[in-house]
Amino acid sequence: MAGNTFGTLFRITTFGESHGAALGVTVDGCPAGLALDEKVIQKELDRRRPGAHSETSTGIPCDPKLNPTSTARKEADACEILSGVFNGQTTGTPIAILIRNTNQKSDDYGDIVTKFRPGHADYPYLKKYGIRDYRGGGRSSGRETAARVAAGAIAQAFLALKGITVRAWTSEAALIKCETFKETEIEANQMRACDSKAAAKMLERVIELKGKGDSAGGIVTCRVSGAGLPGGLGEPVFDKLDAELAHAILSIGAVKGIEFGAGFESARMTGSEWNDPMRIDEVTGQPIFLSNHAGGILGGLSTGAEITFNVAVKPVPSISMTQKTTDIYGKECDIEVHGRHDVCLCPRIVPVVEAMTALVIADLYLRQLAAR
Amino acid sequence: MAGNTFGTLFRITTFGESHGAALGVTVDGCPAGLALDEKVIQKELDRRRPGAHSETSTGIPCDPKLNPTSTARKEADACEILSGVFNGQTTGTPIAILIRNTNQKSDDYGDIVTKFRPGHADYPYLKKYGIRDYRGGGRSSGRETAARVAAGAIAQAFLALKGITVRAWTSEAALIKCETFKETEIEANQMRACDSKAAAKMLERVIELKGKGDSAGGIVTCRVSGAGLPGGLGEPVFDKLDAELAHAILSIGAVKGIEFGAGFESARMTGSEWNDPMRIDEVTGQPIFLSNHAGGILGGLSTGAEITFNVAVKPVPSISMTQKTTDIYGKECDIEVHGRHDVCLCPRIVPVVEAMTALVIADLYLRQLAAR
Amino acid sequence: MAGNTFGTLFRITTFGESHGAALGVTVDGCPAGLALDEKVIQKELDRRRPGAHSETSTGIPCDPKLNPTSTARKEADACEILSGVFNGQTTGTPIAILIRNTNQKSDDYGDIVTKFRPGHADYPYLKKYGIRDYRGGGRSSGRETAARVAAGAIAQAFLALKGITVRAWTSEAALIKCETFKETEIEANQMRACDSKAAAKMLERVIELKGKGDSAGGIVTCRVSGAGLPGGLGEPVFDKLDAELAHAILSIGAVKGIEFGAGFESARMTGSEWNDPMRIDEVTGQPIFLSNHAGGILGGLSTGAEITFNVAVKPVPSISMTQKTTDIYGKECDIEVHGRHDVCLCPRIVPVVEAMTALVIADLYLRQLAAR
Amino acid sequence: MAGNTFGTLFRITTFGESHGAALGVTVDGCPAGLALDEKVIQKELDRRRPGAHSETSTGIPCDPKLNPTSTARKEADACEILSGVFNGQTTGTPIAILIRNTNQKSDDYGDIVTKFRPGHADYPYLKKYGIRDYRGGGRSSGRETAARVAAGAIAQAFLALKGITVRAWTSEAALIKCETFKETEIEANQMRACDSKAAAKMLERVIELKGKGDSAGGIVTCRVSGAGLPGGLGEPVFDKLDAELAHAILSIGAVKGIEFGAGFESARMTGSEWNDPMRIDEVTGQPIFLSNHAGGILGGLSTGAEITFNVAVKPVPSISMTQKTTDIYGKECDIEVHGRHDVCLCPRIVPVVEAMTALVIADLYLRQLAAR
Repeated sequence: MAGNTFGTLFRITTFGESHGAALGVTVDGCPAGLALDEKVIQKELDRRRPGAHSETSTGIPCDPKLNPTSTARKEADACEILSGVFNGQTTGTPIAILIRNTNQKSDDYGDIVTKFRPGHADYPYLKKYGIRDYRGGGRSSGRETAARVAAGAIAQAFLALKGITVRAWTSEAALIKCETFKETEIEANQMRACDSKAAAKMLERVIELKGKGDSAGGIVTCRVSGAGLPGGLGEPVFDKLDAELAHAILSIGAVKGIEFGAGFESARMTGSEWNDPMRIDEVTGQPIFLSNHAGGILGGLSTGAEITFNVAVKPVPSISMTQKTTDIYGKECDIEVHGRHDVCLCPRIVPVVEAMTALVIADLYLRQLAAR
Repeated sequence: MAGNTFGTLFRITTFGESHGAALGVTVDGCPAGLALDEKVIQKELDRRRPGAHSETSTGIPCDPKLNPTSTARKEADACEILSGVFNGQTTGTPIAILIRNTNQKSDDYGDIVTKFRPGHADYPYLKKYGIRDYRGGGRSSGRETAARVAAGAIAQAFLALKGITVRAWTSEAALIKCETFKETEIEANQMRACDSKAAAKMLERVIELKGKGDSAGGIVTCRVSGAGLPGGLGEPVFDKLDAELAHAILSIGAVKGIEFGAGFESARMTGSEWNDPMRIDEVTGQPIFLSNHAGGILGGLSTGAEITFNVAVKPVPSISMTQKTTDIYGKECDIEVHGRHDVCLCPRIVPVVEAMTALVIADLYLRQLAAR
Repeated sequence: MAGNTFGTLFRITTFGESHGAALGVTVDGCPAGLALDEKVIQKELDRRRPGAHSETSTGIPCDPKLNPTSTARKEADACEILSGVFNGQTTGTPIAILIRNTNQKSDDYGDIVTKFRPGHADYPYLKKYGIRDYRGGGRSSGRETAARVAAGAIAQAFLALKGITVRAWTSEAALIKCETFKETEIEANQMRACDSKAAAKMLERVIELKGKGDSAGGIVTCRVSGAGLPGGLGEPVFDKLDAELAHAILSIGAVKGIEFGAGFESARMTGSEWNDPMRIDEVTGQPIFLSNHAGGILGGLSTGAEITFNVAVKPVPSISMTQKTTDIYGKECDIEVHGRHDVCLCPRIVPVVEAMTALVIADLYLRQLAAR
Repeated sequence: MAGNTFGTLFRITTFGESHGAALGVTVDGCPAGLALDEKVIQKELDRRRPGAHSETSTGIPCDPKLNPTSTARKEADACEILSGVFNGQTTGTPIAILIRNTNQKSDDYGDIVTKFRPGHADYPYLKKYGIRDYRGGGRSSGRETAARVAAGAIAQAFLALKGITVRAWTSEAALIKCETFKETEIEANQMRACDSKAAAKMLERVIELKGKGDSAGGIVTCRVSGAGLPGGLGEPVFDKLDAELAHAILSIGAVKGIEFGAGFESARMTGSEWNDPMRIDEVTGQPIFLSNHAGGILGGLSTGAEITFNVAVKPVPSISMTQKTTDIYGKECDIEVHGRHDVCLCPRIVPVVEAMTALVIADLYLRQLAAR
């Protein structure tokens, strides 16, 4: 079990390197009878794809409507469903999705063949395997997340049928925090921020950092909601809902932390402040919570309230400034990492966070069927 | 797979409710030939056990030498090894450990039979299973962690042989942060804080909160280090070292967040600040890192540097102040939760964090054997 | 994953050596709300327990009513439920069952400390682990199956609610084949044979072999049936119903083969003979099969017809005749294995086969819930 | 976990339907540093491919040298490695292999759209999923085994490095048993029989059955051997070597039974006959067994002796004779299954049995690394 499979019943296995022939994913355990075609998947893959803004080169995804000068490579990341769908419906058998790498460079890889890029996994991969696919970071490249997003699109289609929605956005980036929340603004700005004014400032600072050859971190927030979100999702003891989500989200390359509900602020609260009081909803007659410091999770099970969590995203490690490092010969040296790199990962991580979250929820939803 | 098993090769399965007959764990996959007896396990169980300080009743573990008036129930949490050890050595077969519950109360459980305690898992358990063992929280009780600590002691014994040490401590509690770090002070104060002056202030505030019937949260910090800590631990893509640790730690009841290295601060840093430069150690001739914002993990693999992370611990939900809640009949009501409860979980969570961390490291260590 | 866990959703983890402190099992994933107490489990454990027939010493289980001179150790193999049951119902949390070993001999183990018993696992255990618990075969002892039988009793209780019955019997032993099938006779003779006349001959031959210090093999047949047995159980491709059953049954110590439906005879049939024609049942209006060479399984999925298979049981390897072997010092030597041993395992394997079969069916039943 | 993944450390996940776009497999956990290219895999795929003998149309694989009139479609089943290999070596990351389906028929599927073919999985698939990909049997088609063979080629390359060889052959087919064993003859006759005279008779009878529109079963025998085959492979209790092999082999579509060593004959033997005596090999100084009724496995662990087992293969269910069946509307009807079908699966199952066996051995070999 070399760690390329995720999930118990709704379960994915991915493969692919940044500059190999293709990326892909096998989705096993998706229930039969779900309507599915390549458009459903392609739509999410397109959200994850980098933009190509000649004027900004921020590497931030771009809706052509927002930025008419963009020359987005529309052919890139085209997916093909290889199995598991018949007459527009899933059959219960594994759904394999293939994404060809169309832009593999076969030319010189320069410094990174022999030097370890700071902030990257070059060094520990060599320690682990004794061999390293240095082309674009190989398996450790963020490109690997395309396979997750493809699979997540299927999980989201499944959850949509059940009345459950997963939504993520940038809540902070490059030292700018969002101060308002408008869901409709998220996909309407290049930062995928929930506050378009903050987004404008973020973008400004991102462009400035780009000019210096530097990069920025940020925070992505995620929410699971919907009329169909049940109480009781999650498995005590080790596969708690939050434990599974933490596993899923920390498995995304650039993530350095996760917190649920009040999160780290919980450490500074008293029990009387933290505990969410319960009342009966007048309309539904069902218990509800008057606050949500728990982030919708108690004892590792969903309470029925919205599930909320924040994700810490580190700054992109590929920067063109000179950095101190060492090489595969055990010598000290300097490195500058050039090429087209993102400056801030937040907007592109948003669909990845959504995908991984949807996969966890779909899996626990199916596992729940066997609870009684 | 109902979530009571953790790990791939070094693997534990636990059972037991707070007020049932016993708790226990089966450790499967511990290599043969490891020296083991009950003392190794009991020592860790004793660290996790609540103290019984007549003067403070903080529920905080207590070294009798520190507090001679303590009447610690020495008989409690006594473990028995049922299998897997022969002539003082592990045999490669499953090691089962049994911990009898000696203090089950058979009397009246009062309000909690019908009312949902805020901040507890009472409500979602009922939603999930349609039946609820209300005695002391049943399976959702923190008592369940005794089984983890017992198993973790075995993992720690295994890691010790390999030159790897896992150490956790309270770094913040009840709004007091530690300002110094002295490893020797950790076990010398009741808060298991790394700064004894801060510990004294924490304890003061904890006692104050106890007087009000309230409770406090805090932060536990953990570090994995040692001459034997290899680079390359962790499995790309989904079973990254940080993903596995996050899964392990978030599976502990009161934990609401985890962050590695610079953690959430990463969100506010630039790449040039964040990236840890590499140099060659003059003594060993091996690459080292000049800083450790990565927390010893890049691309989900250990770098060989110390692995560090912080854990957000929520305030104890059992408080004697009056709280709004609902009951199993769908009615609104008030509840006061009495009985002997901890005020701040940090000192008791320290050995649990160590145990879960050791289990992850031991498992990935064994998985690493098959990497090339 | 050292192989002591079986099942995906309905899942067991066992521990224990022949002469250790105890045997036990943790059943994880049993749905909440199932009526359960120790009697349900003890009844099956008692079926597995060896008899103690002073006149025959065959080691064959014995109903005291059949054999009033039997001095069955009634206290043996007493089980205790440690968790997972509350007010007579399963709660969804893990059900741990403990069976103390009451007859551990602490005295001299004689030859087997240093010599490898032919037909036993002594030699490969030492090759694997470098250490060996020689007391009664340690983990490789058939005693380990008590834990399976305890868990199987729970699976059978679950299946009974669903209208599914698992039934096994001896169909051949010591060169005697059953010629008739009467279900009521199975538990009414010491061989658990489906033909009491054959059983009498088997027993005669078993006694004769015992006199020579030798032993006998046999065949156990198993059938899963009942109005609630659904079509579609099993998971293509690798977790086919027959693949899972084969895994389960071959994991029983003395089993050397399994065949489904027409089994090895299939090799000698033509397609026109083998294929089971389908018709519509006049009463139910459902498809039925006019024959059952498939043993109720096509493409790894249940067809709804009875599931049938045969199990080859090797002769008991512990015989008192002199055998050639080697010892742990690399020397050749002779060995005679004395002590109270079974002569033919079939009657005692019957409940183990039922248990493992029930565990597979219960697991696949739960997995089926997520199929569409 | 819908059953499309097999193995623990050396682990495969397959996908693909008979008439879908492609078949494929992701091999996860293959150690880094193994020399690998597409030729290694293609060679095994070619062994599995049906022949196209215009004169016999037996569907039996054919070496063009043996049968110069054969028009084998050389382009068929061409594999492509999509990931996990860099500069001719495995990198430790998942190895994905793609096999396009080139002969999908898009025309009329006739009767099988609505009628259940006897001996096929049509009916239980519909019961399970409520939807059925009827094109060529969909996922239940034997074509699925191409993915296994591709993965098995990698496992065999790994085992070859360790000095372990897996070899299978037809030992009986169409009522003809092999009477001699010559390893060199196996690949030199169309039946892959170990006795070329018997092979000639088998082929004669196969052609005769084909003329009648009927088919035949047979037995495939497999052996694992080599100087590198260690003792101790396998994991007690549930993942015994024989249990894992049984799981692997019974997961192949047409298999109805498996027996190890003396197998079902064990049932008719006494202990003194069955037990394999041990002696010390004069050359190596290591223990050896004077017979091998155990088939190289005791207590679920390899003994170091050759591992041997027989596999019962049912007759091909697709026959052109008229058969009674029912349809998806619940009506009785007749069916004749036309098209190019194999008559006897044995020769084509040989490489599949080898592949599955190699996968099990490779996996247990890696798991063994963590035993002490």
